[in-house]
Amino acid sequence: MTVPKRALALVKVYTLIEPGPVVLLTTTGPTGPNVMPMSWHCMLEFVPPLIGCVVSNRNYSFELLAAAKECVINIPTVEIAKQVVGCGNCHGPKTDKFRKFGLTASPAKLVAAPLIDECFASLECRVVDRSRVPKYGFVVLEVVKAWMDPAVKHPRTIHHRGFGKFAVASESIRLRSRMM
Amino acid sequence: MTVPKRALALVKVYTLIEPGPVVLLTTTGPTGPNVMPMSWHCMLEFVPPLIGCVVSNRNYSFELLAAAKECVINIPTVEIAKQVVGCGNCHGPKTDKFRKFGLTASPAKLVAAPLIDECFASLECRVVDRSRVPKYGFVVLEVVKAWMDPAVKHPRTIHHRGFGKFAVASESIRLRSRMM
Repeated sequence: MTVPKRALALVKVYTLIEPGPVVLLTTTGPTGPNVMPMSWHCMLEFVPPLIGCVVSNRNYSFELLAAAKECVINIPTVEIAKQVVGCGNCHGPKTDKFRKFGLTASPAKLVAAPLIDECFASLECRVVDRSRVPKYGFVVLEVVKAWMDPAVKHPRTIHHRGFGKFAVASESIRLRSRMM
Repeated sequence: MTVPKRALALVKVYTLIEPGPVVLLTTTGPTGPNVMPMSWHCMLEFVPPLIGCVVSNRNYSFELLAAAKECVINIPTVEIAKQVVGCGNCHGPKTDKFRKFGLTASPAKLVAAPLIDECFASLECRVVDRSRVPKYGFVVLEVVKAWMDPAVKHPRTIHHRGFGKFAVASESIRLRSRMM
């Protein structure tokens, strides 16, 4: 399953991150691309979209992100939940996780890290603030280019509740809100 | 609808915040308690549980939080989604939002801000780091006491997708994961 993505206006990026889905962070370096699941992230600004996230220095992605200062946040849905969890259960660079889990890496436009074709949305990011990396592993990313499959209106994103338990965002409601 | 909450081990707090639900932040001050919905939050550490969140200085809660350095993060489910959105559509301290939306404020144990009885979980928090408030409105909270209704196994939390559109975490799956 791969999805045809189109450019998404940067002002809409928060609608993808604010609901708190598990995302797949892709990075790249001398040993090739890597991917890891991530749930500790937070919108910090609408435009340009700023996303804070925690990447532990126990993850191989930490090194790649520190060196390249670029990454892609890819957003999966429940259809590939097993692959997402699989990416968290093994360690780069020993494993080619793309090959192992049947994930397709496509070139991004503005960064070297790849998009994942099986994810309905991908956000190309550059690191803009590492001041809270020493204290919390918290790095601030600016989204410089966003992609989304326009056919996906109610993405069944997955939300980690700990120890392999996930909630699926499978229902959708609308309420009169003045919140952006 | 009020729920009987019991103390929750601090090590389990991340299982409530990591899925990215809309939460209700309660604060208090000379004009009485206030409440606002919030979606821009992020786990930063398991134990003691640290939560980073964005509180804009356009919100009355910003002042109360800056002064008292304490708050409670309450987690609502879809049953009270209308009240949650209502709290975001009006402004404290002009409105007594608890009264207006039928929310019950109960005393917390370690902080002055109240728990909300209609929420299935409540986290008593103290501000521990304001260094990124000037730049992003990003404040770091330490959870000092946690409460949860033990009967709630699959909370139907709500997840904001922008402009009054919410996903409901209504399905639950389990996968073999080594992720904590």
